[in-house]
This record gives sequence, structure tokens and C-alpha cells, in this order.
Amino acid sequence: MFQKILVANRGEIALRVIRACRDLGIQVAVVYSEADRGAPYLELADQAICIGPGPAPESYLKIPRIIAAAEVAGAQAIHPGYGFLSENSKFAEQCRESGIEFIGPPVSAMEKLGNKDKAKELARAARVPTVPGSDGIVTSDEEALRVARAAGYPVLIKAAAGGGGKGMRLVREEAALLPLLHQARAEAEAAFKDGSVFIEKYLERPRHVEVQILGDQYGNVIHLFERDCSLQRRHQKLVEESPAPHLPDSVRQAICEAAVRLAKAAGYYSAGTCEFLVDQQYNFYFIEVNARIQVEHPVTELVTGVDLIREQIRIAAGEKLRYQQADIVQRGCAIEARINAENPEQDFRPSPGTVTVWRPPGGPGVRLDTHVVTGYRVPPNYDSMVAKLLVYQPTRAEACAVMRRALREFIVEGIHTTIPLHRQIFEHPAFLEGRVYTTLIEQEILRPRRSASA
Amino acid sequence: MFQKILVANRGEIALRVIRACRDLGIQVAVVYSEADRGAPYLELADQAICIGPGPAPESYLKIPRIIAAAEVAGAQAIHPGYGFLSENSKFAEQCRESGIEFIGPPVSAMEKLGNKDKAKELARAARVPTVPGSDGIVTSDEEALRVARAAGYPVLIKAAAGGGGKGMRLVREEAALLPLLHQARAEAEAAFKDGSVFIEKYLERPRHVEVQILGDQYGNVIHLFERDCSLQRRHQKLVEESPAPHLPDSVRQAICEAAVRLAKAAGYYSAGTCEFLVDQQYNFYFIEVNARIQVEHPVTELVTGVDLIREQIRIAAGEKLRYQQADIVQRGCAIEARINAENPEQDFRPSPGTVTVWRPPGGPGVRLDTHVVTGYRVPPNYDSMVAKLLVYQPTRAEACAVMRRALREFIVEGIHTTIPLHRQIFEHPAFLEGRVYTTLIEQEILRPRRSASA
Repeated sequence: MFQKILVANRGEIALRVIRACRDLGIQVAVVYSEADRGAPYLELADQAICIGPGPAPESYLKIPRIIAAAEVAGAQAIHPGYGFLSENSKFAEQCRESGIEFIGPPVSAMEKLGNKDKAKELARAARVPTVPGSDGIVTSDEEALRVARAAGYPVLIKAAAGGGGKGMRLVREEAALLPLLHQARAEAEAAFKDGSVFIEKYLERPRHVEVQILGDQYGNVIHLFERDCSLQRRHQKLVEESPAPHLPDSVRQAICEAAVRLAKAAGYYSAGTCEFLVDQQYNFYFIEVNARIQVEHPVTELVTGVDLIREQIRIAAGEKLRYQQADIVQRGCAIEARINAENPEQDFRPSPGTVTVWRPPGGPGVRLDTHVVTGYRVPPNYDSMVAKLLVYQPTRAEACAVMRRALREFIVEGIHTTIPLHRQIFEHPAFLEGRVYTTLIEQEILRPRRSASA
Repeated sequence: MFQKILVANRGEIALRVIRACRDLGIQVAVVYSEADRGAPYLELADQAICIGPGPAPESYLKIPRIIAAAEVAGAQAIHPGYGFLSENSKFAEQCRESGIEFIGPPVSAMEKLGNKDKAKELARAARVPTVPGSDGIVTSDEEALRVARAAGYPVLIKAAAGGGGKGMRLVREEAALLPLLHQARAEAEAAFKDGSVFIEKYLERPRHVEVQILGDQYGNVIHLFERDCSLQRRHQKLVEESPAPHLPDSVRQAICEAAVRLAKAAGYYSAGTCEFLVDQQYNFYFIEVNARIQVEHPVTELVTGVDLIREQIRIAAGEKLRYQQADIVQRGCAIEARINAENPEQDFRPSPGTVTVWRPPGGPGVRLDTHVVTGYRVPPNYDSMVAKLLVYQPTRAEACAVMRRALREFIVEGIHTTIPLHRQIFEHPAFLEGRVYTTLIEQEILRPRRSASA
């Protein structure tokens, strides 16, 4: 086992890894930028090393400085957390070339999965369904008709060079396909000087369901069941839970097995997540693999009792997986609410500054992962997440009640946070009934409130 | 179910009950004394009612004021917490006569179990072993010899009027019994003008093991396994855990079944605890029943997943037990450290005052039950406990590691606390090996430290 680990990240995930090292009896060093100087979580490591100015490209993304910090600290391994360099295969490669273990997957798997097209090819080869549609650009009307019919209507036409909805058309029946295809091409040509479009099946009110996997360096891969992360705002997850509400057991089984097949096909090890969209008929479609630990990993820790960061460390040290698939039981219900330093009243504008009052909730069924304390200054430089509030209860209804209680207890002053939005979510009938989909917050929670206040 | 509950207590247990009411969607009022005016936890109830000055006899022990507060609040039930009036059968009776449910056991069971001699008689009738010895005062040398032989050496001679070790003698073999008996009588006569003594079996390095039980109003009683509470200082528990380390499963089974037999014999319902001493050979002896919720109840909540306060409320409302014995599984290991506002450097003198910094630990495996926040003033009037720090992990070794990590993170300024003592305990080989007994702290942890600093 490693004697010392360097944490190449900041904020709550840096603290999370520091805690895991303490729990394993491993020494731990942490890097920090000038913007994070004096942050209280740094005191919880054995050593803190400054790696440069606040902007991430000059510190947290600076590979040579991080490897130098590991060498200075005498660390045998680096944990990259999430974000920053965590999915950078060059970084992983350079760590290992420097004789320092990168706590994450093998470079080959990172490269295969880092490219979305390659990842989808790999998925199809492993009999993991992807969103049906054209294999790249649609070149003729005949191809468009054939692809759309095979995918099943409705389909979405998307500009290859696209963005902002330009060159995008929703087609609900075959009769409308060719006229809308021509419109989309013309619009894309006008907007991007590139009329190329592709076609894919349109999923109505899809859910985001992802599967946590763990693999070791000896080819053993298991899943730790799924998380539902449908509650998002502008593609940023806000609430995550396990189990996914109303997911039939046969679908749960199939999606988890698909994730394991894909991870095995990629030669994956360490912790990773296979993300899927699930439609209203419970068909699931692979989107991408996150080849790192994820923000929402504690949800899985609560329902399975497995500490994912400790397992990542053990796997990186060459240990065999300590669990077989049958050992993993999904018990009870866990939900996470991401608390961001943002102002919901001002379109979620980041709200950095000094936290004058930080009164966290506690008691039964509550876990709080945060690096914030009273007096902490939230720097403007980074991601706005300041805490992950988690609840764990025998049932989803009880978990929602405990979350409401915890959100009520949580008092933060000095900065704005998303706590008021979470209070709305955990009172909202659609959410409470488990009718979740990726645009629920925007369509049913934020929109009515805006029109009411208008 | 009740619409509203009055909490007739203060501090962490008041907050614990407020949280349970919130989790059940029940309105909650709380009483407070003038010494607790402005305490932040009061804001988490729907209503807070002042019931008098700081000294407990003028407020928290004043039955008519508490019943009046329940009537003013429109509460249908009172939760007494622990301490104060929680085991006062007169209070329970008066609540029920006023048409307000007392959330606790029936008056008849409280009366039977409130008297230690009666409780022991009941235990013996239910085939629950008690510490062997004389049935009251020993009147002759012949009786002394007979009783001591039956109990088995070593035995302890104790003055009936005793205290402070006067008239107490430890007898290791029969030859020494009569001389020491005569010495003890003479010493008791001189000290208390009463030479009466009794004899009981002397237990060397006993452990304190207790069994949590739950019963409903329909005669159903189950146990929720045991807690080991051996780590004490001057008979005050400091560390509690479940399961009891090294307890053979057959003993665990026998002690839990004994507790259920006793509770059934007493016609008990609600939550309760049967306390036992366990000797080095794993013989167990009933001491007493605590006919209320206990400070250390969260330890059991963590290993069983059952919320004991919510169950107390459901049972008081007349619901049938939601669990059968087979539903209760003891999973993983939970440990609680009681954090008191006391100064370990000054013989644990209470250390009331204003908490200027309160930085609680968090992250995976940590539960904190506390009413304290930064700026809270610990009043000098009451019990000195300011927090219960709990950890929950798959194994005891992991739980100890997480506790060390959490104790390291926990920063309190403005008052002294027992955190430094807990840091010693969770580094101490005897504790880490599970070699626990009721005087371990005094004999192996505090004593060496004192002589080292002397």
C-alpha cells in the first residue's frame, strides 16, 4: 500500500480524498493555488503545497507542477479527484512515467472512452445500446428516410457544426422528414457555412441513469447499481439518488450488466460511471463513460456501504477487488442535493464571497460533504459547489422528509446558495412522485415560479 | 397519529425529538427555561414555550407547567427525552390523566422497574440472572459462609448504609471471609452507626452491556441487539458501541432474549434498555432497566437502520410494531463518543461558556447529534454534554479509524471539551483490541497520564 498520496484537486473532493487517506492510515499531501491559500481543509492534510496562481491553467491544470509537488512530498500516488486533470490521459501517462501511480483507470481505457464516437463504437461492439440514428452525416434523402425509419419517430435532425438550436428540427412523422431536413440544412449552411446534419432518435422526457462500476487490474469488474441524476439545470446535475425511482428491476439488471460489459470491453479498472438516457418506455441508451470518480459517488456509498475512494486507492495499489458482484446489495434510498454558491433569484449567477454564517444540518440520516466553514471565502475562480447534502433512509419518501428537514436546518449567510431551489424541489409533487426527467427543473419548477413572479 | 407533540426537554435530545417529528410530518412545540432562552435549536420547532427559571426544579422538573405548556400548544402527546421527568411515573400518570399521551412505557411498568429490588425480583422470576449474593442484610456468620459459597469467590462485603468504600471488603477465599466480615461490620458501625452489611459476588473487570428493546401496546416485544457501554468515568458513560466487541454470538443471543423476557414480564412497551454486567467468562447479570430512550440510542439506530424516536412516537400513538424480530439485523459497527463541556486537564470540571468556534467533522461514516452552533452559550445549569459524535463502518477497526479522523477534524474554541480524552481513547491499545471494562479509562488511560505529568 502507498505510504503517501498527493491530492491534485481542491474543495470538497480534496477533503473527501484526504479523509479516505486518513481512514486508511495513509499520509496525505494536497496541492493548492494562491486563490485557495489558507482554506481550512488544507490543514487536515499532512502537507499542503502551493502550485501557482488562482487561474486553473496556471495551477490545477499544470501537469509538471503537480508531478513536481508529488516528488517534493514523496508521494507514491496522485488522486486527481474530478474535473481538472482527472480525465486527462496525458496526465495519467506522465504520472506513471514518473514512477508515480495515477489513481484512476489505465491510459488505454481513458483514450478509448475519452472520444465519444469511439466510446459508442465500443458500446455497440459490447451489445450496449446507443441512441439510434445515422452513423455520422446524412448524405442523401434516401439515407435520411432509411435512418429515421430504423430509429423510429420522432427523430431529431442536428447540425454537425451545430449549437444553440440552429439547424435543429424535431420530426414527428415521416411525411415531414424531407421538408424539415432541407430547412435544417439551409439553416445550418447559413449559420455555420456547413450544411452537414445527422439524425438521431428523439427521446421525450428522458431520464439520466448512470451505473457505478469498480474494476481491478486483474480483469474483475462489478457494478454498484445505478444512480438517477435526471434533476439538472442546463445539463448541470442538481439532485442525484439511488435507486432510480420506478425503474423496473429487470431494466435495472439489464442496464447494470450492460455497464459491466462495456467496462470489460474497454479493459477498464478503478471507479467509473457509464451514463445512459432512459426513455419513458424504459429503453436505455448509452451516452458516455466518466472515467473518474464522480461528484455524486456518495449516493452509491450510502446504499451499498462501499467506500469508493478507499477502493480506488486499493485498486491503484494493485489489490484485488474485495467484493464479488453478489456482495453488493442496494439497500434503502440515498439522495444528494448539490448546494452551489449561486443566486437562484438572479438566474443562478455565481455568488462567491465570505461565508459569515455556516450552520450545517445534522442528526440521523444526514451526511454532509463540504470544505466550507464559518469565515471561509468562496473564491470566484472555480466551480460554485460548496456542499453536498446527502440523506439516507429506508424509503424514498422518508429520505425526502429528512432532506426537507435538513434543508430547513441549513443556514448560510454571506453568500447566496441553491438551498431555496432545493427546498422547492423537495416539495414538488412531480419529484416526490418520482416522475423525474432531465428538464423537469426547467419545465415544471423554475418556469412556473418565474411566470408567477412576473 | 398525533398532530402535534410537545418536547419536554432541552439540548441535543430536544433537537433529536424535533427532528423525528419533522421527519414524520408532525408539528412540534418545545419547552425551555430562561437559561435556554435564545438557544438556536428552539427555532427549529414550530413553537417554543418558556416554563420558568434556569434551575431544573423550577422549569424542566415542574410537572404542572409542562402539562400546561402542552395544553397551550395544543399538543396531544409529550416526549420527555432522557433525564428530568423521563422516568417519573407520576408525570406519566398526570399526562395521561390530562388526556395527553406520555411517549414512554406504561405507568405500571415504570413503577415495577423504578425500584431496583422489585426489578431484580421480576428479573429472577423471568429467569434473568442477577448478581448472586445475600437477599438483603447478612445476619449471621453461617449465612455469610453459605451465601459466599453459593455466589462463588471472590465476593464483596458492602455496608448497607455505605458509601465511599467504608465497610467494604473484597474477599478472595473462604478462610478470609469471617475475619473480614467482622472488620467490615465494625468499620460500618463506626462510620454510619449501622453495622449492617450484605454480600455479593465480586465481578473483576466487568463490562457494561445493555440491550435495546422496543415493545408495542399489544404485547409484542423485540430486541435491537446490544450496546457495549463499558467505557465510563465515574459511572458516566463516555463511549458506546454496537456490537459489543468479542461477545460470543451465543452470549449475545442469550442476553438479548433475557432482555425480551424481562420486558414482557414487566408488561413493557415503548423503547427501553435492560442493563447487564458481563464478567470475563461472559456470565451476564441484570442490573436495571432504563425505562426511557437513552443518550446512546443512535448507536443502535446505525447498526439496525431503525429510527428509535420515530418508533416511540408510533407506539405511543397506538400503532403496532412495524418490525418482527427476524427483521432486525445488526449490520456493521457503530461507535459513539460523548463530547462534554468539561476540562480533562482539571479533573473534568464543567466548562460552560460561549462557543467561539464550532467546526464539526463530517464526510462518510459520520453522524453528529448536537444542539451547539458557533456562538452558542453552554449554560452552567445542566448536564455538560454538547455533542454525540457517531461513526458507522463495516468493521470496528474501520470505525475507530473514522473516529480518529473525525476527532482530528473537530475544532471547538471558547470552552474545554472531552475531545482530547477521546483522542487518547481511540489511540489506546486496550480499547482498539476491544479489551473493554468499566474502569478501563480510570485504570489504564487517565492514571498513566497523570503519573507521567506528575
